[in-house]
Amino acid sequence: MDHFSRLEQSDLEITTLGRCTIKSPLALSSTPGDHVGDFVHDDARMIFEPRFRASGQVNPLSLEHAGPRERIYFDPAQTKAAIVTCGGLCPGINNVIRTAVFELAYNYGVPEVLGIRFGFEGLNPAAGRSPIRLTPELVEDIHHKGGTILGTSRGPQDPKHTVDFLLSQGVNILLAVGGDGTQRGARAIAEEALRRKAPLAVVGVPKTIDNDVKFCFTTFGFATAVGEAETVIDRAHVEAKAVYNGVGLVKLMGREAGFIAASATLASGEANFCLIPELPLELEGPHGFLMKLRRRLAAREHAVVVVAEGAGQNLLQQEANRGADASGNRRLGDIGYYLKERIESFFKAQNTPVNVKYFDPSYYIRSLPAAAVDSLLCERFARAAVHAAMAGKTDMLVGLWHNHLVHVPLTASTGVKRRLNPESELWTSVLALTGQEKW
Amino acid sequence: MDHFSRLEQSDLEITTLGRCTIKSPLALSSTPGDHVGDFVHDDARMIFEPRFRASGQVNPLSLEHAGPRERIYFDPAQTKAAIVTCGGLCPGINNVIRTAVFELAYNYGVPEVLGIRFGFEGLNPAAGRSPIRLTPELVEDIHHKGGTILGTSRGPQDPKHTVDFLLSQGVNILLAVGGDGTQRGARAIAEEALRRKAPLAVVGVPKTIDNDVKFCFTTFGFATAVGEAETVIDRAHVEAKAVYNGVGLVKLMGREAGFIAASATLASGEANFCLIPELPLELEGPHGFLMKLRRRLAAREHAVVVVAEGAGQNLLQQEANRGADASGNRRLGDIGYYLKERIESFFKAQNTPVNVKYFDPSYYIRSLPAAAVDSLLCERFARAAVHAAMAGKTDMLVGLWHNHLVHVPLTASTGVKRRLNPESELWTSVLALTGQEKW
Amino acid sequence: MDHFSRLEQSDLEITTLGRCTIKSPLALSSTPGDHVGDFVHDDARMIFEPRFRASGQVNPLSLEHAGPRERIYFDPAQTKAAIVTCGGLCPGINNVIRTAVFELAYNYGVPEVLGIRFGFEGLNPAAGRSPIRLTPELVEDIHHKGGTILGTSRGPQDPKHTVDFLLSQGVNILLAVGGDGTQRGARAIAEEALRRKAPLAVVGVPKTIDNDVKFCFTTFGFATAVGEAETVIDRAHVEAKAVYNGVGLVKLMGREAGFIAASATLASGEANFCLIPELPLELEGPHGFLMKLRRRLAAREHAVVVVAEGAGQNLLQQEANRGADASGNRRLGDIGYYLKERIESFFKAQNTPVNVKYFDPSYYIRSLPAAAVDSLLCERFARAAVHAAMAGKTDMLVGLWHNHLVHVPLTASTGVKRRLNPESELWTSVLALTGQEKW
Amino acid sequence: MDHFSRLEQSDLEITTLGRCTIKSPLALSSTPGDHVGDFVHDDARMIFEPRFRASGQVNPLSLEHAGPRERIYFDPAQTKAAIVTCGGLCPGINNVIRTAVFELAYNYGVPEVLGIRFGFEGLNPAAGRSPIRLTPELVEDIHHKGGTILGTSRGPQDPKHTVDFLLSQGVNILLAVGGDGTQRGARAIAEEALRRKAPLAVVGVPKTIDNDVKFCFTTFGFATAVGEAETVIDRAHVEAKAVYNGVGLVKLMGREAGFIAASATLASGEANFCLIPELPLELEGPHGFLMKLRRRLAAREHAVVVVAEGAGQNLLQQEANRGADASGNRRLGDIGYYLKERIESFFKAQNTPVNVKYFDPSYYIRSLPAAAVDSLLCERFARAAVHAAMAGKTDMLVGLWHNHLVHVPLTASTGVKRRLNPESELWTSVLALTGQEKW
Repeated sequence: MDHFSRLEQSDLEITTLGRCTIKSPLALSSTPGDHVGDFVHDDARMIFEPRFRASGQVNPLSLEHAGPRERIYFDPAQTKAAIVTCGGLCPGINNVIRTAVFELAYNYGVPEVLGIRFGFEGLNPAAGRSPIRLTPELVEDIHHKGGTILGTSRGPQDPKHTVDFLLSQGVNILLAVGGDGTQRGARAIAEEALRRKAPLAVVGVPKTIDNDVKFCFTTFGFATAVGEAETVIDRAHVEAKAVYNGVGLVKLMGREAGFIAASATLASGEANFCLIPELPLELEGPHGFLMKLRRRLAAREHAVVVVAEGAGQNLLQQEANRGADASGNRRLGDIGYYLKERIESFFKAQNTPVNVKYFDPSYYIRSLPAAAVDSLLCERFARAAVHAAMAGKTDMLVGLWHNHLVHVPLTASTGVKRRLNPESELWTSVLALTGQEKW
Repeated sequence: MDHFSRLEQSDLEITTLGRCTIKSPLALSSTPGDHVGDFVHDDARMIFEPRFRASGQVNPLSLEHAGPRERIYFDPAQTKAAIVTCGGLCPGINNVIRTAVFELAYNYGVPEVLGIRFGFEGLNPAAGRSPIRLTPELVEDIHHKGGTILGTSRGPQDPKHTVDFLLSQGVNILLAVGGDGTQRGARAIAEEALRRKAPLAVVGVPKTIDNDVKFCFTTFGFATAVGEAETVIDRAHVEAKAVYNGVGLVKLMGREAGFIAASATLASGEANFCLIPELPLELEGPHGFLMKLRRRLAAREHAVVVVAEGAGQNLLQQEANRGADASGNRRLGDIGYYLKERIESFFKAQNTPVNVKYFDPSYYIRSLPAAAVDSLLCERFARAAVHAAMAGKTDMLVGLWHNHLVHVPLTASTGVKRRLNPESELWTSVLALTGQEKW
Repeated sequence: MDHFSRLEQSDLEITTLGRCTIKSPLALSSTPGDHVGDFVHDDARMIFEPRFRASGQVNPLSLEHAGPRERIYFDPAQTKAAIVTCGGLCPGINNVIRTAVFELAYNYGVPEVLGIRFGFEGLNPAAGRSPIRLTPELVEDIHHKGGTILGTSRGPQDPKHTVDFLLSQGVNILLAVGGDGTQRGARAIAEEALRRKAPLAVVGVPKTIDNDVKFCFTTFGFATAVGEAETVIDRAHVEAKAVYNGVGLVKLMGREAGFIAASATLASGEANFCLIPELPLELEGPHGFLMKLRRRLAAREHAVVVVAEGAGQNLLQQEANRGADASGNRRLGDIGYYLKERIESFFKAQNTPVNVKYFDPSYYIRSLPAAAVDSLLCERFARAAVHAAMAGKTDMLVGLWHNHLVHVPLTASTGVKRRLNPESELWTSVLALTGQEKW
Repeated sequence: MDHFSRLEQSDLEITTLGRCTIKSPLALSSTPGDHVGDFVHDDARMIFEPRFRASGQVNPLSLEHAGPRERIYFDPAQTKAAIVTCGGLCPGINNVIRTAVFELAYNYGVPEVLGIRFGFEGLNPAAGRSPIRLTPELVEDIHHKGGTILGTSRGPQDPKHTVDFLLSQGVNILLAVGGDGTQRGARAIAEEALRRKAPLAVVGVPKTIDNDVKFCFTTFGFATAVGEAETVIDRAHVEAKAVYNGVGLVKLMGREAGFIAASATLASGEANFCLIPELPLELEGPHGFLMKLRRRLAAREHAVVVVAEGAGQNLLQQEANRGADASGNRRLGDIGYYLKERIESFFKAQNTPVNVKYFDPSYYIRSLPAAAVDSLLCERFARAAVHAAMAGKTDMLVGLWHNHLVHVPLTASTGVKRRLNPESELWTSVLALTGQEKW
């Protein structure tokens, strides 16, 4: 939690467009015990760090609780919303779209929701991709499909043009589904709109298959990804065991964080090595990875290695500095191939047969529909985002903290990503299971 | 959270067998920042309720944090452990067994782990089912299989005989994997052993596919169950839509709590009614379920109904009181059949064709292997249980609170089950999605 | 093959509406070796029984080969087709619809295809369910979904009214997707149209999850059904092994033929008894099923029993004759419940504990989307049906014989169902695997 | 079928070790109609080509029918069998092993079955990999697992050493599970044994995920492979549609035959181009693949391309002749990468954005457990191989022809592979579905 050490309470305050004077149309109450679902009070808070030492104090930092408010900012009948999806695919995007449309249309009574095509590009009229109208009928069946019916793209657009476009379309609410880059883009749009005092609420829904968004214990798509990654590790195990000195090498997603690699390793129970971006990767030397692998193969005749795509960047950098050629440069981005070649040349030099089977399932995983637990998360994120936006909150992200949804300012949640703490329970469990330090 | 309103801090204190004087053999440290995984301090706590009103106070109640301790009670080389699995099947039991055996044998160096056959029956020598020896080799592949390799049964045994038997076998640690009944049995064993001042630590691992254990936000198997239940709802939707006035009726697990029914309804997005034990079920009258179903069919020509097995007990009770015959009595236990017959007779009386397809997937779901997220949970629960037991903690259950593992006294965690709060976000989302109150 | 013993060649001749004078628009040739796909000659035949004894003769009976003809009967631009789907669900119906629409619209250039709603009912104007227009856009994504987008129903309609309706709509081609009852209905429609000399070709596509259509070695949906049935048997095995004297009892589809039960038993490899309609079921006596089950449990402590829904009708009939009450009558239709109760009472009488877990997955299986091999079959059946109809063939069914598609007159293919020969390789393999005769 | 045009009946005669004088212990009869499963007469035959023109003649060529014989050659009590598995993984190998062991041990009563480790290498004592003993207990659960419990390797061994080794071990029956190379190795072993008049029957079980073995309409693993390949194509479709001008490029197995590519294309229904080894691949020119792809993208903004690994070897050869460097040479073997680069450079040259997502699922597919239809095939092949070997037949392969199992001499079945006929129904269906010739 040290990356939060400089966090102050003021960093966690949410911006709103103005006072909430309109009664919510939702069939909820503010009275506990009346068997009617409850609105969430606007001063409901969530302790940021619930862990403490009996000998110490509870950290008083807190986050704003998400949920439907009794008083809202926008008059639903006069409101127009838009949804944009950006970045790489992740299981569950269509679920978020579907629930947001349902909540806006059926429950709040918002008459029109626009779907922006192909990410932020669709907010740039010059790109020529007009929004589509998202009706409940159109989105009824989309949640069983992977991908995003809106299309996606990478990269930002000029926030001035974006705000011009949104205002010209009469849009009051923009829900931006995407990762860190997208949320930085959303922040620029929100701030441009605030500067103009325009009635435009911008609310982010975090989408990152790597699970590396701050203030999000789990993002949607992560469980689906870990489930499929487990399957791939299990298949790599089958391939590795079927030949003499077989090595199943599986590259998984995780540019800066090893959550998928570590979690899939634990879920599978079949990997013998798990390599993550948070820890340097040493190949050479008596305690380097290659000698460990040799000892493992000598003892068990097969091995399964999981590597996060962001692991070993120290090695790829060295390689680049040594003046690698075009081919080397291409490999730079790919620790999987690099490792495959290093393993093969190491064992060849030792005259030891080795049979490396390489698996790179990134697209297989990203294109999946959401598994049930992720569908539930999407439901929750989408509704919370709609509630926040209807209450006029802006420049914020919906987070998930201790299983409750919270509001987090985009200034606090963007720019630095969440990483796996190598002293945490998650990583010590990986070491306990694989025994990878002991070879 | 009202069922916790009378909870006092003293109810949450953990019993231990004695002082921890032995250095843990685990390769961890107590120094944050040294890149070595951390032991958990024995005074580490977790706030029980992290939510509060800015205008109010944080509830000071707290739970003991689980995890590996630097000093432990049992000398691993002199320790013998046993594992017992009780009650109905639930995805993940074999994962718990595997991880517990691995952690005890590989990481703590405990020389022998016994597997008790067929639940508590296997602790009664009169039943004649001797324990088996659980070696790492034996359990290596079991985590991909549903069920429990140890077998299971229902019902308790006399704790005196059980403790006699365990002590006669030299067992110091008993891990009891099961639901509320099992944990009550475990509590009796723990208390009998404490009374005798015997060196026997009893630690419970909660197993309940219904997710209704107190102090457990999620139990293992629940996510797998929701995933498969979603699949069944989707198939019921296919059957319902394929015929005129088709009704797909799906009975799901949940004797006292509607978590599976509600979560699967949200995950599927295809159910139009969700009936749970926490709310009374009214069939008759203009706002009763049958008229709502009629209006739904008139509008859309098909419907999907999800019912938790514990829903509508008020109706079944009435039926029984009216003096139902043998057939009626049999139906008493089965809200699914009862509902099917009531729907059919209601529409028959109205001369409206209706085509009810009934789904009862209980065993299909219970027998599944754990999905990846549940495998992760099993990993965590099993290791935490071993850590607690090695530290001499007893008469306790491993809980999961705000995504962290905690220790909970069996006195506090048994006897009353967790139930779905109908004013909570989960249930209001179900109503928001299904619109079932609006017909 | 004995049920074909009275078959004569003349029984296998196909009726046509008239001479084929129009050149097919398909981009095929009649010249082998030109690297262009081939039309099938109208006199191409398929030996009915390719097996013979070297000491004997080849049976000269033959069937007409299916496939695209160089000359067709209907002018595509003037043709209107309709598709109707009847009876219980079966994986792959939507695939048949999609391929038929694509083949008619894209490849033949037929301007309009109607989709008849809810089976033959949709051909009766009195029922008030108008056809929908099936465009390629509408059917583009349907093949990944179970069920039938057209809806279905059971039972026939008056062929006079049906032909009136079809002619009034200008329909020239009716593709009837369904089982034996449907094909008998199709035959009545075809014969009524022939009587009137109306330009209406009626071509059947066999749909029977039980795989019991004559002249069809495999019907679509069967492989999907066997795959899911295998899964259910495997789960029953998990449940059976998890308790002392557990019995997993799985009822599978198969009213008159045991193909699914036998095939799923072989695929699973976990069933110990397989009971099919083709063989009488004896429960009592030293060599009856109950004593065999007792010996099996005594030896192995668990058992898995697969029973086809049509098995044991001899027993249910006895029961009925004995004057069973309402409850008994209900059970009559359900060999699964009957067997469960008989097993339980038998072991109760012997004071032997037994734990029967009953599985009835019929709807789970019927509602599945087609597995890949079935998608391929649907592709083949649908195109062959379109080719036959465009060539003016009528009163016929598309069959699959020795992996080639054939044309079969409805007079020959309806009325008697295909059954599993208990002296065949399939059944002897079941006995070889289960060893069920040996207990 | 033209590759069979020079086939003579004498090419199809099976070699036997001698007269069958021992009564089979199987509980079968030779009397049809007695409700006891039937032995297969040794002169039972199967017409090779059941198709004919009414104006022509039936081709009299025939194959020997497989199945249990009433009289066998080996005395089971004196017989020792061995199983070897070679080449790449394929779903179902463990099923073949399990069924063969069960049939030999339980039904014939053969006392010992050896499992040869790591392919033919395990028949070379110099490699130091001793056989294991395959008992029914050992193989009981293996059929749910991918891979081969025996391990595998590629390449032959000296048949003299192999026969020496087998005879030294007292082996009478060798079942060789593998593809064309393996069967050529088996043929060499069989012929060496025949030369020595040694009592060793060598029977091949065809294993080829590409489905390219002659006299085998379908080999086991193929359906499983097509099923998973379909899944991958569907995911590629999701990725392609999610971005502007997305191209999902899927490389599938098929070195010399396009069966998997064509079948998965049909099963998926989402591919727009299917490229197979049997047809030359032209990239350039107005009717080349690249221009077709451009027209497709211009019309629909996304495309899915399936390419068999053996397609386009003409292009890779040209590339090699042009003097490609090491990098080029590496690509030579990989049409997938080559195509990806050619597509990207083509559109780059046209200033058209394109986004190629490349999928190479080979290992994911090979490592799967068998789907149900393949489990059934494995059952059949394994039993037929045991029956043939017990009857002293040798130097032969079990084939599958018109859904019946047959015996084929290894001289006839090896050396030339089965290929997809581009004028056949399979390929014309691919063209009809994809419309790939029309762009």
